[in-house]
Amino acid sequence: GDVVEVRVDFGRALDPAAMADAIAAGPTRLCAVVHAETSTGVLTDLNPIAAAAREAGALFAVDCVTSIGGLELDFDDVGVDAAFCGTQKCLSVPPGLAPVTFSPRALARVADRRHPVPFYFDTRLLTGYFGPDRAYHYTAPVSMIYALAASLEEVAAEGLAAREARHRDVAAALRRGLAPLGLEPLVPVEHATPMLTTVRYPDGVDDGAFRRHLRERHGIEVGGGLGPLAGRAFRVGLMGHGARRENVLRAVAAFGDALAACGHRDADVAGALAAVHAG
Amino acid sequence: GDVVEVRVDFGRALDPAAMADAIAAGPTRLCAVVHAETSTGVLTDLNPIAAAAREAGALFAVDCVTSIGGLELDFDDVGVDAAFCGTQKCLSVPPGLAPVTFSPRALARVADRRHPVPFYFDTRLLTGYFGPDRAYHYTAPVSMIYALAASLEEVAAEGLAAREARHRDVAAALRRGLAPLGLEPLVPVEHATPMLTTVRYPDGVDDGAFRRHLRERHGIEVGGGLGPLAGRAFRVGLMGHGARRENVLRAVAAFGDALAACGHRDADVAGALAAVHAG
Repeated sequence: GDVVEVRVDFGRALDPAAMADAIAAGPTRLCAVVHAETSTGVLTDLNPIAAAAREAGALFAVDCVTSIGGLELDFDDVGVDAAFCGTQKCLSVPPGLAPVTFSPRALARVADRRHPVPFYFDTRLLTGYFGPDRAYHYTAPVSMIYALAASLEEVAAEGLAAREARHRDVAAALRRGLAPLGLEPLVPVEHATPMLTTVRYPDGVDDGAFRRHLRERHGIEVGGGLGPLAGRAFRVGLMGHGARRENVLRAVAAFGDALAACGHRDADVAGALAAVHAG
Repeated sequence: GDVVEVRVDFGRALDPAAMADAIAAGPTRLCAVVHAETSTGVLTDLNPIAAAAREAGALFAVDCVTSIGGLELDFDDVGVDAAFCGTQKCLSVPPGLAPVTFSPRALARVADRRHPVPFYFDTRLLTGYFGPDRAYHYTAPVSMIYALAASLEEVAAEGLAAREARHRDVAAALRRGLAPLGLEPLVPVEHATPMLTTVRYPDGVDDGAFRRHLRERHGIEVGGGLGPLAGRAFRVGLMGHGARRENVLRAVAAFGDALAACGHRDADVAGALAAVHAG
């Protein structure tokens, strides 16, 4: 079938009304969105989009790669029919797993499928593997699954609500620290993910020099800007085990040092560190 | 395009002439075979099939999942255009990686492709990732790659020829040990993989009871028979680090014990152990 893209500028939140219009203009079989968008740090408000999808009889699929383990999300409550995630972000597991979940409605759609799909994406084979038959589908990455089990024990011990609160607290501390440095977050706080913050460069700061300084002098790696933001912004991930105030203090001090090294000398590092503590 | 299957009975080797006929009956764009077949333990003689594919202008693709690190295979010499493997068998890396390789001919075919393919199988994206652009394709499973690097150091230290010889020695020792137990390998030695040996049960031995006894009393897991061999044979993997004579001795003694526990009492365990040493 045809794919309809609902576009917004980088760093702007998806407009739920525009999504609802696009869904209603269908017939729409599937509506797919990213929950926490790591290219920009935009958080999608799932509820109104899920409601529009449900009303149109469409399945609702969500990319939870960055949100899982860092935000509370009740798939049944929101009405998520299919979701996939990664474990290397807010779950702090080594990369290599992509857990998925499907609603009974999604599995019924799969069961009705008349055209073959590639092996790796064949949910029918996957359900055979996880069903009572344990039909062979793949060799499980056992050491990764042990790591995931350990991570889920940590999540359960901390509690998902506390975990979301920690990510939000740490993201807020980072934002407070940016202003005295003369740095500005791309995404307004009401549309921002707590785990990924995109920061605009002040005029004249070279992206490569700034990030190299962070990497080589401070052992800190931040992401570069993507698409239209390449060279104009950097992306700070504070996820899972790494989402801690002490890391924000380290990062803020390092940003100030790197700005100075790049010739940008009006950063108030002491003020930034105090601001991190202030909340 | 249409897929033509060249079928043989379980445990029989692919007939190169039948393959050559099927290729020549084409137009054939791609010919794909399994090198070392873990369902049965059949080893495919790649050279005549590769030659037939080359003559027809077809690409030649090989599943090397079980052979990599256990058999010598020179992709360029044989004329392999695409190969994929797993690292959890003869490389003894935890499961989770599937290295692939492509010839320039295969990459040219990919570059000419006019229809989109699913993300996971999009070799064009993959070449962008591994090219100078390092274009984002996936988050690399870094801990698995460290494990692979360690394994490849071990392979280099041992040497691939020595590694193949070790696998062949160990498989021969296993075969010698089977006869005094009254057990018979499914695949004639000239068509057999050294790393996987399928063994027929004597009449009256229950597959579930036999394998449970091995697992619970000896801590040894062997594979069950597949397809028409289900319940009629078991599969012994001796791969990578595990392909050692002492493991053959343990396995042969355990098979004798499990046969006796299943009511099959004419196994000569002492003779089997002596036979393992004899080569």
